Order: sequence, then C-alpha cells, then structure tokens
Amino acid sequence: MINTLIQKIQERKAPIVVGLDPMLNYVPDWIQKAAFEEHGETLEGAAEAIWQFNRGIVDAVCDLIPAVKPQLAMYEQFGIPGMIAFQKTVDYCKEKGLVVIADAKRGDIGSTSVAYAVGHLGKVSVGGKSYAPFDEDFITVNPYLGTDGVKPFVDVCKEHQKGIFVLVKTSNPSSGEFQDQKIDGRPLYELVAEKVVAWGEECMGDSYSNVGCVVGATYPEQGKILRKLMPKTYILVPGYGAQGGTAKDLVDYFNEDGLGAIVNSSRGIIAAYKKEEYSKFGEEHYAEASRQAVEDMIADINSVM
Amino acid sequence: MINTLIQKIQERKAPIVVGLDPMLNYVPDWIQKAAFEEHGETLEGAAEAIWQFNRGIVDAVCDLIPAVKPQLAMYEQFGIPGMIAFQKTVDYCKEKGLVVIADAKRGDIGSTSVAYAVGHLGKVSVGGKSYAPFDEDFITVNPYLGTDGVKPFVDVCKEHQKGIFVLVKTSNPSSGEFQDQKIDGRPLYELVAEKVVAWGEECMGDSYSNVGCVVGATYPEQGKILRKLMPKTYILVPGYGAQGGTAKDLVDYFNEDGLGAIVNSSRGIIAAYKKEEYSKFGEEHYAEASRQAVEDMIADINSVM
Repeated sequence: MINTLIQKIQERKAPIVVGLDPMLNYVPDWIQKAAFEEHGETLEGAAEAIWQFNRGIVDAVCDLIPAVKPQLAMYEQFGIPGMIAFQKTVDYCKEKGLVVIADAKRGDIGSTSVAYAVGHLGKVSVGGKSYAPFDEDFITVNPYLGTDGVKPFVDVCKEHQKGIFVLVKTSNPSSGEFQDQKIDGRPLYELVAEKVVAWGEECMGDSYSNVGCVVGATYPEQGKILRKLMPKTYILVPGYGAQGGTAKDLVDYFNEDGLGAIVNSSRGIIAAYKKEEYSKFGEEHYAEASRQAVEDMIADINSVM
Repeated sequence: MINTLIQKIQERKAPIVVGLDPMLNYVPDWIQKAAFEEHGETLEGAAEAIWQFNRGIVDAVCDLIPAVKPQLAMYEQFGIPGMIAFQKTVDYCKEKGLVVIADAKRGDIGSTSVAYAVGHLGKVSVGGKSYAPFDEDFITVNPYLGTDGVKPFVDVCKEHQKGIFVLVKTSNPSSGEFQDQKIDGRPLYELVAEKVVAWGEECMGDSYSNVGCVVGATYPEQGKILRKLMPKTYILVPGYGAQGGTAKDLVDYFNEDGLGAIVNSSRGIIAAYKKEEYSKFGEEHYAEASRQAVEDMIADINSVM
C-alpha cells in the first residue's frame, strides 16, 4: 500500500493528506439544518450532517490530493450513527481513488490487536465466509504495549497489502512527558523509532516500508533526527497549520528523493471557510474554500522542498 | 463511579470483573447456527451470535459479580454490526446492575481525546439536545501522549461521575519493551504511575480515585511496587488465568483494607465450557460453566486475601 500512496503523491505533486475530522461546529448551518430536518437533532442527524459535509469536501478536493485521514474519534463520539458515517466516508473516499488512513491509534495485547487489525485492515471469518469490515488502507497504531501489540498489524499488512503508521513523537504539547524521557541518554521516541524500523523491514514496499510512523510538525528538531534514524520509513506529519507547524519546519521530514513524508492538515482545510483569508467563499461554498486551502497548502509545502 | 464499583465489590465479596471478549470460536455451535439461520454467515450473523452468547453469560453470572469488561476490539472486528452488539451488551449489563468497564485503550491529542471521552463516558451536543452515545461507566486509556491526551477523560469523569483506568504496566509478554525502560534508574511505568496519581487527585471518590490504572497479573513484583506508589488508585488487573497469573500473584495488588484491585478474567470465564474441568457442562450449558468458573475464581482470589 505504501507504493500506491507514493505513486499518488507523485502523480499529484502533493505530499499532503486531508484530515477528515469533522466537529459538528465546522459543519455549515445549512447542512446541519437539512440533516436535522430529515433526522431531527439526533445522533443520526449529526452523523448525516458530518457525512454530507465530508462528501462536499471530498468532491471538491479529490483530484488534488493522494489521501485522506479520517479521525475515528470524531465519528465514534456520535455512537453507532457516527460509525456508519465513518464507514460511508471511507467507502466514498476509496471510490474516489483516495488512499484512506484511519487515524485510530489502536493497540492492545497480541490477541486483541489481531481483532483490531482484521477489523480495520484485514478480513474476519464468519462461518465459511470472510468480510473486510472497515477496509481502510492504513491505520495509526499506538506502540505503548510493545512488539506483540504491533506485530499483529504488521502481519495483516503483509497478508492484505495494507500499511500502518506507528506513533513515535506526537504533535501535542505534552507529548514529551513520556516520549522524551531519556533512556541511556536517548529519548524514548528514538527507541520506538528503532523498533519501527525493525517491524518495517518485514513489510517493505519498493523503496519505503508499509510500516510508517507519526512525527508531529511541531517538533522539527526531533523530526530531523528521526528522519535519519528511519530512512525507509514514511512519516505521517500532523500538526501543520492549526497546531502551529509551518512549511519551513517540514523540510527535514523529507528525504533527498523528495519523498518520505506526508503532511496532514485537518481544521485548516475542512474548516477553511471559517478563516478570514477564505471567508469570501462563505458558508455556502465551504468546499471551494477547502479546495483553495488545499491548493495553498500544496504550494506552501512544495515551495520549501 | 469508583464508589459504586467498590460498593458492588463489597456487596458481592468479589473483587473480579468478567471480560466479555467473545471470539466467534468461543460461541457454541448451536448459538452460531441459530444466528446464521436468521442472518446468514454475515457480519450481522456474527454480531447476533456474540450478543446472544454474551446475554447467556450475563444472565448466568450477574448476581455474582460487580462488573464486566467488554473489549471493544472484539466487537469492532465485526464492523458496524459488531459495534451494535457492543452497545446492546453495554446497555444490557447496565440494566442488570453491572458496572461496565469498556476496554477501549483510547487516547489521542487533547481535542481528539475530548471526542472519545464524550462519546464513551459523557454527552455529545447535537443542536439543542445532548446524548450519551455509548455511556459506559469506565474506559481504559493509553497514556503515551501524556497529560493533554488523558486530561479530557478526567474532565469528563468529573462532570459525569465516571472513571478511567490508565495503562501503566500491561500484562503482555513484550510490555517491558518500552514500559520497563529505565529513566534516571526508574522504569517508565513508575513515571506513568506518578502521573496517574496526579490526574487522580483531581477526581477522588470517597477513599479511592476515579482515575484507576491497569497493571497485569503477570508482573507481580512490579504490581507490589506500583500498589505502594499509588495507594488511592484502583488497579484493574488483567492476565489472571489464561495469561498465566495466579491468585497467589495477586495478593500484593490489594491494600490492607482488602480493596484497591479488581481482577479480570475473560477466556477463563466466558469459554470455561471448553476447559476440561468444566467440560461436564457441555456446549448447551456453557453459561452454567461460566457461573461455576466465576464461583471458583472468587473462591480462589478470596482464599489468598
């Protein structure tokens, strides 16, 4: 799957991913109103609103970008109807030719990680049949439980040509609390990075591994070091835009081949119409604002490459 | 919520929790057959089978135990129908007076953890209304992202009288890979434990905090140390039974008040009928085998207290 992702990044000259993390207050009133008229102010209504919102954005930007990253929490918060909206979003994005990275941050003990892995990336057996329940292309994985918590995902990636991104150094302010702790003089995230390399060797694409990692744009110094520690690991980079990361911060996340990183923006794209610079589009044309924000982001990132 | 859990533990003299982690191969053939006859060999059929299986066990053991711990992965692996079976299970267990600990191991950056927290423990707003989508009593939380990833759960616990159990030292074989790494001579899990205490001080029940932790039964030496480091923290203890932990290993997870720990068994209870010692019950009476296994587990643990 990493080969497919790289091919799409190259075709579109866009090492970016749009985070489909719809808070209900990002959704224009007219979409909410239509959804609530049909379903009431219910979980079903909220789910319909975020699904229609997503669809508008995907239609507007799908020719510009290689991938989307729906954040499961934003769907799970609306219960079962939210999960149905998640699945519709995944299916629709795949129909539109986009690679889907589910931001799930799952991870458990071995036998339980198997269940997450088959549910999201692989197939589950039911009697004599088998099904791919969510069938995303990539999923993000939390490494706190160690190798036997991550390995089941790697095994499913090998079997089904899928991929994962393992959390190494996250973009949030307190990520350092545990991740930066020094072990024999080196931060924990470097130890995690070494394991990511080892896991990834089992599951290589042509030039990069199907086991990628997450390193926040908000920690460029660490990003530079981690890039060198993991030369064949694709880095999924959250934290650009709303969280404070700038294009200049991202240079060292890429390899000399111009590959090796894919930068996420969520709020900055999907709620672009709420920002002053895109306010001319108005609520009615929120998706066009997102398209403009995608074009600006691609230009911004390519300008520093 | 920790007060409620403790009260139920004391009423039933049973510091245990039954892990409702139904693999399809635990479900007796006659239940699978009935479900597949109604829904076909589909995800809906699998979900119906695990729900009927769960209901049988809950009916058989609900007067003996304080709490259940459904593992979300086991439901998520069957997609949306699986999630519906999860929700039915949660609702049914609450109807039966059981405390529900959702083993979700969620955790993300702040704004995203808010979404998980409201979806599982709190309420989400939709227009002028609000809903409690999954409404479990406790949820397990992964601390790798640090305070700003955990704090939103704590805040929701305060607002809605709920609780969490934060992963400190997990029961799996490779848990030590990162968790045992030494920082200034002390393992990472002790640093996490100190944070658990700090988070928990904000959210105290009468004698214990609503912020608990997870320490595997498979690491009794570490359990002993962690018990002392976190005197007011309830410990959720996985790894008893099938994973190798014995009652003798558990003594030091409890405080002198006889409280402070709740021991989970999943496979050992729900698939008891498959073990030689309970085989006399047969598939037909799988739930009675589970009841006997619960009685034996309670006696086993109380024998060492």
